[in-house]
Amino acid sequence: MTAKMKAAIFVEPNRIVLDEKPIPDVGPLDALVRITTTTICGTDIHILKGEYPVARGLTIGHEPVGIIEKLGSAVEGYREGQRVIAGAITPSGHSNACLCGCLSQDGPRMKYGFKPMGGWRFGNTIDGAQAEYLLVPDAMANLSPIPDGLSDEQVLMCPDIMSTGFSGAESGRIRIGDTVAVFAQGPIGLCATAGAKLMGATKIITVDSVPSRMEISRRMGADHVIDFSKADVVDEIMRLTDGRGVDVAIEALGRQETFEAALRVLRPGGTLSSLGVYSKDLTIPLDAFLAGLGDHTIVTTLCPGGKERMRRLMDVIASGRLDTRPLVTHRFTLDQIEEAYDLFGHQRDGVLKVAITP
Amino acid sequence: MTAKMKAAIFVEPNRIVLDEKPIPDVGPLDALVRITTTTICGTDIHILKGEYPVARGLTIGHEPVGIIEKLGSAVEGYREGQRVIAGAITPSGHSNACLCGCLSQDGPRMKYGFKPMGGWRFGNTIDGAQAEYLLVPDAMANLSPIPDGLSDEQVLMCPDIMSTGFSGAESGRIRIGDTVAVFAQGPIGLCATAGAKLMGATKIITVDSVPSRMEISRRMGADHVIDFSKADVVDEIMRLTDGRGVDVAIEALGRQETFEAALRVLRPGGTLSSLGVYSKDLTIPLDAFLAGLGDHTIVTTLCPGGKERMRRLMDVIASGRLDTRPLVTHRFTLDQIEEAYDLFGHQRDGVLKVAITP
Amino acid sequence: MTAKMKAAIFVEPNRIVLDEKPIPDVGPLDALVRITTTTICGTDIHILKGEYPVARGLTIGHEPVGIIEKLGSAVEGYREGQRVIAGAITPSGHSNACLCGCLSQDGPRMKYGFKPMGGWRFGNTIDGAQAEYLLVPDAMANLSPIPDGLSDEQVLMCPDIMSTGFSGAESGRIRIGDTVAVFAQGPIGLCATAGAKLMGATKIITVDSVPSRMEISRRMGADHVIDFSKADVVDEIMRLTDGRGVDVAIEALGRQETFEAALRVLRPGGTLSSLGVYSKDLTIPLDAFLAGLGDHTIVTTLCPGGKERMRRLMDVIASGRLDTRPLVTHRFTLDQIEEAYDLFGHQRDGVLKVAITP
Amino acid sequence: MTAKMKAAIFVEPNRIVLDEKPIPDVGPLDALVRITTTTICGTDIHILKGEYPVARGLTIGHEPVGIIEKLGSAVEGYREGQRVIAGAITPSGHSNACLCGCLSQDGPRMKYGFKPMGGWRFGNTIDGAQAEYLLVPDAMANLSPIPDGLSDEQVLMCPDIMSTGFSGAESGRIRIGDTVAVFAQGPIGLCATAGAKLMGATKIITVDSVPSRMEISRRMGADHVIDFSKADVVDEIMRLTDGRGVDVAIEALGRQETFEAALRVLRPGGTLSSLGVYSKDLTIPLDAFLAGLGDHTIVTTLCPGGKERMRRLMDVIASGRLDTRPLVTHRFTLDQIEEAYDLFGHQRDGVLKVAITP
Repeated sequence: MTAKMKAAIFVEPNRIVLDEKPIPDVGPLDALVRITTTTICGTDIHILKGEYPVARGLTIGHEPVGIIEKLGSAVEGYREGQRVIAGAITPSGHSNACLCGCLSQDGPRMKYGFKPMGGWRFGNTIDGAQAEYLLVPDAMANLSPIPDGLSDEQVLMCPDIMSTGFSGAESGRIRIGDTVAVFAQGPIGLCATAGAKLMGATKIITVDSVPSRMEISRRMGADHVIDFSKADVVDEIMRLTDGRGVDVAIEALGRQETFEAALRVLRPGGTLSSLGVYSKDLTIPLDAFLAGLGDHTIVTTLCPGGKERMRRLMDVIASGRLDTRPLVTHRFTLDQIEEAYDLFGHQRDGVLKVAITP
Repeated sequence: MTAKMKAAIFVEPNRIVLDEKPIPDVGPLDALVRITTTTICGTDIHILKGEYPVARGLTIGHEPVGIIEKLGSAVEGYREGQRVIAGAITPSGHSNACLCGCLSQDGPRMKYGFKPMGGWRFGNTIDGAQAEYLLVPDAMANLSPIPDGLSDEQVLMCPDIMSTGFSGAESGRIRIGDTVAVFAQGPIGLCATAGAKLMGATKIITVDSVPSRMEISRRMGADHVIDFSKADVVDEIMRLTDGRGVDVAIEALGRQETFEAALRVLRPGGTLSSLGVYSKDLTIPLDAFLAGLGDHTIVTTLCPGGKERMRRLMDVIASGRLDTRPLVTHRFTLDQIEEAYDLFGHQRDGVLKVAITP
Repeated sequence: MTAKMKAAIFVEPNRIVLDEKPIPDVGPLDALVRITTTTICGTDIHILKGEYPVARGLTIGHEPVGIIEKLGSAVEGYREGQRVIAGAITPSGHSNACLCGCLSQDGPRMKYGFKPMGGWRFGNTIDGAQAEYLLVPDAMANLSPIPDGLSDEQVLMCPDIMSTGFSGAESGRIRIGDTVAVFAQGPIGLCATAGAKLMGATKIITVDSVPSRMEISRRMGADHVIDFSKADVVDEIMRLTDGRGVDVAIEALGRQETFEAALRVLRPGGTLSSLGVYSKDLTIPLDAFLAGLGDHTIVTTLCPGGKERMRRLMDVIASGRLDTRPLVTHRFTLDQIEEAYDLFGHQRDGVLKVAITP
Repeated sequence: MTAKMKAAIFVEPNRIVLDEKPIPDVGPLDALVRITTTTICGTDIHILKGEYPVARGLTIGHEPVGIIEKLGSAVEGYREGQRVIAGAITPSGHSNACLCGCLSQDGPRMKYGFKPMGGWRFGNTIDGAQAEYLLVPDAMANLSPIPDGLSDEQVLMCPDIMSTGFSGAESGRIRIGDTVAVFAQGPIGLCATAGAKLMGATKIITVDSVPSRMEISRRMGADHVIDFSKADVVDEIMRLTDGRGVDVAIEALGRQETFEAALRVLRPGGTLSSLGVYSKDLTIPLDAFLAGLGDHTIVTTLCPGGKERMRRLMDVIASGRLDTRPLVTHRFTLDQIEEAYDLFGHQRDGVLKVAITP
């Protein structure tokens, strides 16, 4: 008789339920991790609403913190009982994409017209982390031991939120002395702000309208916070930069308005670093694009994964350079996950991120 | 009495005429160059048609080859009588943009809503090269002596066509072993193909439908040339790359169709290097953009200028690595320039580039 | 009758004296700056001792803060009376080196066997800043207005110390999460530490033995400070990194011992960023160099100059990200400069940097 | 009874003999490859002479071409009977070093004082390729199928010679229009020359004294070939560059003389890309190093490995951009390998590389 576990399962659009599933078997390169803390991502809400398609019956979630329960027969360098995290994106390490440094686009090669994000597997193409147990593929490339002294909640943002947010700053190639604008201050946007600060930006302008987010934005490093409900964002940023525009604009929402505003405030030669998951075609206005003559760069980044990335992010936390605990505003048990989806999906009660503990 | 010279002048949309103008005075940082050969650019046709606005009465043209007639009082390091070229883009060298390496976006800072391309001055914001004499601003940053033994026609593509085309490959950061697609094989696209070959791309796929351009494309380095009038370009490129897509896609036309196809054939993690001058808003289709999750880079590049760029490009010619003379298909005197505009503007008679000699 | 000014002049090895000189004439591209504050650099001590050769009679000093007294006839964009700084290195902006981004190596091309550092002119090849007036060449590329509200002492480290120190971190290409060691915590080493912190290093290990410097080092961002007089530095760094070594090692002294130790603690694939001015041949030990098989990078950086660099550094100060005033430990008038040289040259009284006010 | 195979074994300094060994067992992540062609490397001669220490009894060789005989139980994506190569360096794909892009420095972390080159395993820390069979670790990261139509000898240079040689150009970040010097034109130097040409260098100056190598050097892309036995190399390169020096200097021998000459001809801001395996401490002369003020970069590169690298290099061959067959000057059976070592070790008879066929 197979042992069972509880898991949050996508049943159909607008229905994710907690149900039972068999605890998975462990292949030679896998590790089974007992989840101790996980969370819900904005992308999970896209899945819930049916805006991003996944298979029915799939376990959702891609942000695991837990303890190694069982290691595959070919896995070396770990021990059962070790506290670990794995990134939302789980590179194999041995694909051609990985070996040329493109860790997030691993897995089966893009087939024209098919789902392309080979590296994003948890809660996308294989069962995810909102469960009692999680099977981690290519464990040696993905399990990262949690440094002594760090709690689950201290590292809970590493697998996705912090990795993605920081990558907005990194892909923007921010340099000391840069002026940076960050559009939207949800969890990822807030981590983009923190990343911009960590990389040496000296004028950071952020945009949101929720007072609590605007407040945390300042703590994360914003020098100026614009309330888009009260000011013309483009005008205000141009004013704050003496008409010069920003060196790097980070889009952290996934909407036409923010994408377009990011382009409009970009100085010639600047970089628009896009983190948003879009759900519609985008328009690039001719004037904002300077007719293609502005030496602009637009770069999109999928959450960087792999154990080395996780090691570095946890080092940032351990060093005290950044504390992401203020982002965890609500706590639920796994049994309450449907309630958690309801709160998070409707963005009620000032929620930023929820902690889910099986 | 002021001496006069002939110049091709923008009168109004659809009217560029040869007329007389005073030979300009030479300021302390300027040089007056007697034009020996120049040419007409596709951008000049945009100006002619009124699609790109310039002041009435402006002399058109930004591709000068000539002889130094007179040096400004503060100009050192040159002598009158020297054969020189200057790039289409004339950086000052001393602006903040220049000093952080953004040479093409020099000049007055971008003012929100204003014309931003400060570095492009000839035939845009100051009088251009389709004339008997050209005033070169910031001469010390822009005049590049022609190496002995190179003819005017051998270096005529350097100021714009070759500099822009090569930059498509350079901004794409092509590496040895890359697969590259180049969309459109006009003069700039052909130089992008040559640039991709020079940087070590091992599979170069080009797209056009004019047989003579397709033929030159092969000579410039294309391994596969697709006739878009006879094949589905995206399908064909995906087939030629075993469904993998290209590492770098270069857009060299400035149209929605080519921009979109370039994005559709790009592998996750790849770069779309855009050279085109667009005249309408662009659409980024959600699926081609992989919803923003494809680790894509889109980069636009305005023709790199300055004397060091010109020196390097002329070195490429002098080394025998590339011969751009096949691009010069027709020759006119300056007196015949209206005829030349007619031929070039209507792309008659297999024209690629014309040489104009005052 | 020519007006005179006081200036600190190199007479012969071990003799720099305050003397009178004519106030220089202003050429078309120059600006005359009335010095309000300047300082003495370690390099000036090399000059004083005759270890670095300069012409007899030269005015020393390359760290100017002052007020524009007179602008050359071709200089635009400034006004007399403006408070400005200029970098220690004064790129022309229009040389081939400048136009390919190598701003510090401007000026006459390297001639085999000659002094090569074309970009370093003040107090090296032309009269310097330890005087009542300073002639700034290529003023449009070099004068950077001081933001309102910043005092002379707040920006006094920008022209050299902060620009050089930061470049140690920048040339090391420090990334978020890196472990960095900085060898020597004099003024430049301290700014390298601050730069490493600003760029996101999460473990910064510094090395010195002077208690006051070790103390400031912690304030500048050091996580661990090693006293080389009490511990084996290499052993200690390897211990602190669990035998892994550092990602980036910054050399800020210019000695064999520090260069060698930096190499010995470098992880395979790491970068040794060297700032020191050496006065002897260096030895690369075979084992430390891993026989040339360690994927190591050794990079040297001369102080980056130019007005854009100065603008950025003053923005860092203005943003409050860094306060360099603790580095100014002593103050003198220009009349007391020989006394200042004596104190600074012998590193007495815990001196870090002196402020000299004409 | 265990099956046996023939293998070239290091017995003691100056003694490598052909002997019998058991055919190795295949672990879950391994593949057993039947060698069809291999070769001897200059590094193997260092091992033979005892200059580079390996364990007694080790099978030598790191350049395998062969056929998959048996796949480990966890290896997917290959089939037995497939023709493959593996790089000389075999990254695991899942180490922290690999996951931050440092593929050659994989394996056990550097321990202070220990052999650091974790990524180089064949014929260094595990049995190598000069045998009838080779056990390839981490097969999924390392086996690269040979494209149809390419012979063993066409791809024989890919695992090391071409990968290392090209990396000399790549680590030098050669750009279109660069001037490059390559010191020594043995097999690796010749591939560095070819790599420089492929990346767009327009003036390539090579240095050797063996007439046959000088002749092949021209075919590989050299514009000027200097015979160091007949000319002062530094003087000659400075003359050929009008006193300007080279943008990139590639060292491909591993000696003080070539390292030093490479530094002496480097322009300020240039890069010395070092490929040599050194056997003594190196000296950096103060003047050649410009006292540390020359904005120089010195970078060493260990042969890049992994299946994606091999795929790219074989694509270069398949595209016809480069033919390395002229480098294979002699052929032996595995039974004759001691004779092959004798010829190759003494560099007799104009040998460049030998092909060994079991």
